[in-house]
Amino acid sequence: MTHPKFTLREIVSSLGGEAVGEVATPLTGVATLDSAGPSEIAFLANPKYRHKLGTTRAGAVIVGRGDRDAASVPRIVCDNPYAYYARTVALFHPEDAPEPGIHPFAQVDGSANVDASAEIGAFVVIGAQSSIGPGARVGAHSVLGERVTIGEGTRLHPRVTLYDGCTIGARCILHSGVVIGADGFGMARDEGRWIKIPQVGSVRIGDDVEVGANTTIDRGALDDTVIEEGVKIDNLIMIAHNVRIGAHSALAAAVAIAGSSVVGKRCVLAGRVGLSGHVTLCDDVVVLGTSFISHSINKPGVYSSALPSEEAGTWRRIVGRIKRLDSMAKRLRAVEKHVGFSAIDRDSSED
Amino acid sequence: MTHPKFTLREIVSSLGGEAVGEVATPLTGVATLDSAGPSEIAFLANPKYRHKLGTTRAGAVIVGRGDRDAASVPRIVCDNPYAYYARTVALFHPEDAPEPGIHPFAQVDGSANVDASAEIGAFVVIGAQSSIGPGARVGAHSVLGERVTIGEGTRLHPRVTLYDGCTIGARCILHSGVVIGADGFGMARDEGRWIKIPQVGSVRIGDDVEVGANTTIDRGALDDTVIEEGVKIDNLIMIAHNVRIGAHSALAAAVAIAGSSVVGKRCVLAGRVGLSGHVTLCDDVVVLGTSFISHSINKPGVYSSALPSEEAGTWRRIVGRIKRLDSMAKRLRAVEKHVGFSAIDRDSSED
Amino acid sequence: MTHPKFTLREIVSSLGGEAVGEVATPLTGVATLDSAGPSEIAFLANPKYRHKLGTTRAGAVIVGRGDRDAASVPRIVCDNPYAYYARTVALFHPEDAPEPGIHPFAQVDGSANVDASAEIGAFVVIGAQSSIGPGARVGAHSVLGERVTIGEGTRLHPRVTLYDGCTIGARCILHSGVVIGADGFGMARDEGRWIKIPQVGSVRIGDDVEVGANTTIDRGALDDTVIEEGVKIDNLIMIAHNVRIGAHSALAAAVAIAGSSVVGKRCVLAGRVGLSGHVTLCDDVVVLGTSFISHSINKPGVYSSALPSEEAGTWRRIVGRIKRLDSMAKRLRAVEKHVGFSAIDRDSSED
Repeated sequence: MTHPKFTLREIVSSLGGEAVGEVATPLTGVATLDSAGPSEIAFLANPKYRHKLGTTRAGAVIVGRGDRDAASVPRIVCDNPYAYYARTVALFHPEDAPEPGIHPFAQVDGSANVDASAEIGAFVVIGAQSSIGPGARVGAHSVLGERVTIGEGTRLHPRVTLYDGCTIGARCILHSGVVIGADGFGMARDEGRWIKIPQVGSVRIGDDVEVGANTTIDRGALDDTVIEEGVKIDNLIMIAHNVRIGAHSALAAAVAIAGSSVVGKRCVLAGRVGLSGHVTLCDDVVVLGTSFISHSINKPGVYSSALPSEEAGTWRRIVGRIKRLDSMAKRLRAVEKHVGFSAIDRDSSED
Repeated sequence: MTHPKFTLREIVSSLGGEAVGEVATPLTGVATLDSAGPSEIAFLANPKYRHKLGTTRAGAVIVGRGDRDAASVPRIVCDNPYAYYARTVALFHPEDAPEPGIHPFAQVDGSANVDASAEIGAFVVIGAQSSIGPGARVGAHSVLGERVTIGEGTRLHPRVTLYDGCTIGARCILHSGVVIGADGFGMARDEGRWIKIPQVGSVRIGDDVEVGANTTIDRGALDDTVIEEGVKIDNLIMIAHNVRIGAHSALAAAVAIAGSSVVGKRCVLAGRVGLSGHVTLCDDVVVLGTSFISHSINKPGVYSSALPSEEAGTWRRIVGRIKRLDSMAKRLRAVEKHVGFSAIDRDSSED
Repeated sequence: MTHPKFTLREIVSSLGGEAVGEVATPLTGVATLDSAGPSEIAFLANPKYRHKLGTTRAGAVIVGRGDRDAASVPRIVCDNPYAYYARTVALFHPEDAPEPGIHPFAQVDGSANVDASAEIGAFVVIGAQSSIGPGARVGAHSVLGERVTIGEGTRLHPRVTLYDGCTIGARCILHSGVVIGADGFGMARDEGRWIKIPQVGSVRIGDDVEVGANTTIDRGALDDTVIEEGVKIDNLIMIAHNVRIGAHSALAAAVAIAGSSVVGKRCVLAGRVGLSGHVTLCDDVVVLGTSFISHSINKPGVYSSALPSEEAGTWRRIVGRIKRLDSMAKRLRAVEKHVGFSAIDRDSSED
């Protein structure tokens, strides 16, 4: 747990940007403008915190081009200070290298193909004909079915389950409790009972995808469920059978997407967003937290249906009004008729 | 992974229905009308896709009685094409038979009773006095407490947890990450702190129940939590202590049901539906996705409180109007008084 | 599974309160007023069930001071009958004591410090420099990373994952499937791709915290995520990076809290409540089920934004009205102008 030290000069030598001021002092790590001490480097990504540049105790800061002269402490000037911050943290906290080899208490089927540079943890189970790529890590207690493929450099944290036939790309990160490839929720009603529809599709996950803790991605019914490259998926998310998530989209926690829906590229679904089944979002759609999408969206933009909370008594009164809206609309229409006047933007369907 | 082949004649011989046209061509599997090739059989369950019968490349199709002559390709005519499709997929993809026996790295208590035909996977833990029925399968890494009962032919996928005393019926399917019998959320406030109420009820699950990945069903406080036969439960669902779910109901992903609520028979709760505690739904209630149920429902039917999303600016304006609804209602009432007229359906509680 | 028996005299001797009536009959357990038999003790915590005191078959009841004479059966009179009930259940159902020792199939790093009185279950993995306190129990299949600390008397049920560096206080209960310390959802956009921000903070959990099944609590980005003492957290809850939950708060199932938000002390978030990122709730805030909090709350009280369901046709009509609210408000304003009258509480921003 001793971390490496870097001077500003060394940081810009690795990551680019311009170092301004004293560049030879060793720094021990990254911290926020509020909490950084004299041996740490902080960052300014959000302009509303610019005033903190004057009060921070940080030994150095990362700022954008426009803030070159807003700080007097030693600083790195760059195009995208938030991305630069991300890379700086990675510099100070390099990930442990895999420890190649198969733990003696792992159960790896004889027909599986585990690259010699991969790390297989304690009590891992790997089924027949599965394949683990170079430098991949399979955390303790993970269970991989048959014909599972794990790409180069991908990391499964402890206790990930991959059902038969799932494919995971390169450089992915799967967190603990993730379940990929469980059966989609498919069944047919027959004489008052449900008949299970065997789910014989699979799940294909592209390169550079991250999947958060306890998220579930179900296998397809006939075709596959697909997560394209660069998608970032947070915790406790449900992705149902035959969904497709476009490249470089991000899904925050507790999102739930019903079967056969399609999310475009570079979309952002904030926390708790829900999508009905069989809807399609075009590329570059942003949905604000908690919102519900029941119809397809074919125009990039920001969408919402979230209701912010009120004091409960006030809210109860509002809900009462909402429940009587139809009556209220009819009364308004009646008054308009009574006085012989109506605003021209009246919706003609109202009566 | 070589699948069996079947001719139309063989399919109807197994599953019933009427084969029309060429019945002796071997088919290799099931696919959608869009993706099926000449060696595959597709199905038409939703009339809105009927036009695809004319363009599909499928070698055969499954259709309802009314569509007997709507297709010219070889076909199976039956009463319920969606259920027939389910059975046809099962025919082409028979489930592996259990491999009887206890994995050498499983930990089974000496007092547990494991049927000789059951399959117990690697690293499974089974506690004292538990009982595993004939042909049951307990997937790798599953943990069963004491006095757990698993019925005949039930399958636990890898990594299921069953706490002490839980009972699972016959032919159930429990997916990875399921937790059954964890403590209900019961506590009493005492002088500003919470005192835990030990949860000493259990969970009883009937026959033919399926439970999706990472779903949790808590044990009862004093009495049991009960899932009746034939209930289908999707992923990431929360069923709290002392809930009862009636037979043949279906709960889609991310449903959450609070303590002591009762769902009737043959109900359908779509994705993300929430039920408050201590509410009762009668039989045959359907709740649309995302909706919130805070009061009991005693009439079969379809219910909803979902708000579909709008473009965010439009939605913000609507929310502003909602927040001022009480004021608006009062203004309307005042105008009515001013002009001496009000529509007769005015709610008399408005003022 | 034979439970101890207690007389009323023995119960009040252990737990306080006053025994009234026959005090020497042995009782076998606790049940509800509805289901209790002559050898069981029931309780009355909710006054709306007072009439059941006249019909219960219970051999004894626990009542509040005010109900001393409302019952004729043998009874315990106390200040807080619900808390007394909790303690009585615990008396009849004492928890099993830990069985000290490390299971032969556990993998404990040589540098870890496991107290001799702790119980470490089958297939547990404990990483370097971790520490397990006296009387703690680590359930089968749990995986603890490096530098994890577990306090005295804490119980991990089977299959809990704690990532590197997490700290759990004393007397905590963590249920199956809990994941603590997975990476927060932090990333920076850079040229259309997401760059991961390494999450180098940790998670600190205070004493007497309970965490429900399959709940996830992410590690902080730079600083820690913090759960203060006495907090009770139900199942399938998401607590994002850098959140702080104040002491003795309670979060019911399926709550999701986005990054950097702060919940005060003694707050109650009912089921399915969502909090946006970077909001702060002061102490003693109650949020009703399903509600969404997008702004900070600085006044104790009860808050809500939940919409109760209606019959679907009625609801569809209401939604149509909501979508046209802006038009309706403009029409009302126009009518007011036309008749030259407006109620004085009209919101002046409407036009």
